[in-house]
Amino acid sequence: MKKYKKLKKNRIPQGVVDRLPNYLNCFVQLREDGMETVSSKKLGEITNINPAEIRRDLSYFGSYGKKGVGYNIEKMIKEFSHIVGSDRPHKIILIGAGNLGTAIASYEGLNKHGFYVAAIFDNNPKKVGKKIGKLKIKSIDSLIEYNKRNKIKIGIIAVPESAAQNTANLLVQAGVSIILNYAPTLISVPQKVHLHNTDPVKELLHTLYYFRERKL
Amino acid sequence: MKKYKKLKKNRIPQGVVDRLPNYLNCFVQLREDGMETVSSKKLGEITNINPAEIRRDLSYFGSYGKKGVGYNIEKMIKEFSHIVGSDRPHKIILIGAGNLGTAIASYEGLNKHGFYVAAIFDNNPKKVGKKIGKLKIKSIDSLIEYNKRNKIKIGIIAVPESAAQNTANLLVQAGVSIILNYAPTLISVPQKVHLHNTDPVKELLHTLYYFRERKL
Repeated sequence: MKKYKKLKKNRIPQGVVDRLPNYLNCFVQLREDGMETVSSKKLGEITNINPAEIRRDLSYFGSYGKKGVGYNIEKMIKEFSHIVGSDRPHKIILIGAGNLGTAIASYEGLNKHGFYVAAIFDNNPKKVGKKIGKLKIKSIDSLIEYNKRNKIKIGIIAVPESAAQNTANLLVQAGVSIILNYAPTLISVPQKVHLHNTDPVKELLHTLYYFRERKL
Repeated sequence: MKKYKKLKKNRIPQGVVDRLPNYLNCFVQLREDGMETVSSKKLGEITNINPAEIRRDLSYFGSYGKKGVGYNIEKMIKEFSHIVGSDRPHKIILIGAGNLGTAIASYEGLNKHGFYVAAIFDNNPKKVGKKIGKLKIKSIDSLIEYNKRNKIKIGIIAVPESAAQNTANLLVQAGVSIILNYAPTLISVPQKVHLHNTDPVKELLHTLYYFRERKL
C-alpha cells in the first residue's frame, strides 16, 4: 500500500504512463508464451523502446530486474495491472455493430486484460436484435436507459465518421467517462470525460517515418 | 531541402517522432473542419499533450506558431506529410478478410493520408474471390507471386492470434519491410523489418490508468 501512496504524491511522468500499457501488454504476452523472466534487452526488442529507458521506467514502480536474470514476469503483471486497474474486470459499452464493432467485440485480446464488452448498440434497425457472439445488439435509443441501471464507465465508438460526435454526446449523457474513439474524426467532449482518439493511420504514419529514414 | 538535410544530421528525438503522427493526423482533421490556423492550446486539448511540449516539438521542424494566431494548418500538413512521407501514395497489402480486415480495408481515414489497400489476402477458400469494396480477396497462396510483381512494402496483419506468426513470415518472404500487427500476440521478424504491434487493449489500459487516478 505504501508504494501506491508514494506514487500518488510523486506523479509518474506522462511519458512513463504512456509506455506502461506497452509493458503490461508485453508481460502478459510473454507469460502466455510460457516465459517466467525477461531482460530489459528482450523487452526493448519487443517494444522498440531503448533498454536503458525501460530500466529507468520500471524503476519508477520500485521494480528492479536482477542482473543476468531480468524481471519476474508474474510479479510485474501483478504490480502493473494493480497500478493500471486491470486486475478487476471492466465492462465496456460498444457503439457500432459494423465490421469494426464486430472485430472489437470478438477481439481475443480484451479478456486477457479483464475488459469485456457488456453491451453493443447500433442505430440500424436491421441490426438490432441480431447477435455478435453471445450479445444481442441493442437499439441506440435504449442506451441511456440501459446505463442508468448498469453504470458502465467505458465506451468505445466504432461508428462512421459522420455519426461520431452524436455518439460521443450520447455516451456522455449516459454517464460514460472514458471514451475510446475509433472514428477517423475529431470529436469534442466535456473536460471531465477522458477521450482517446485512435486509428490505424497514426501507426502507419509512424512506421512510414522509419520507412523514409531507411529509404526503403 | 536544406532543412531536411539538417534533420538527418540532428536526429529528431524518439519522443517527438512518436508524437508526430498525432500532430499530422490532428492538422488533417482540423483542415477538414474548415480551420486555417490552430493554437498550441487547442492542439493540446485535442491531443492531450501539454501545449508547452507541443511548441517545443514543433520547433524541431523549424515551425513556430505566430503569437495570437497559431500555426498555419495547411503549411504544417505540407511540411509534416513531407517529413513523414505521406505526401506520396503508399500501397498496403492486407492479410485477413475477417471483420477486422474488412474494417481496415473500408476505413475512411486511410486515404486521407495517402494510404490505400492494394490487395487483400485470406486463407479461407470460401472468402477468396469475394469482394471487399472494389477489391477481390486473393488466396494467401498467391501472395509471394503477387508481390514479386508489385513490390509493396507495407503489410497489415489482421488474422487470428494463432495465424499471426506464419502470416508475418510470409509477408517478410514476400519482401514487405513494414508490418503493422493487429493480432493480440507477440510475433518476431528479422531485424531489417519494422514491426509495429497495435491493439485496442493498449489504449484501454492507458485510459484505465487515468480512470484509476480520478477514482471514477
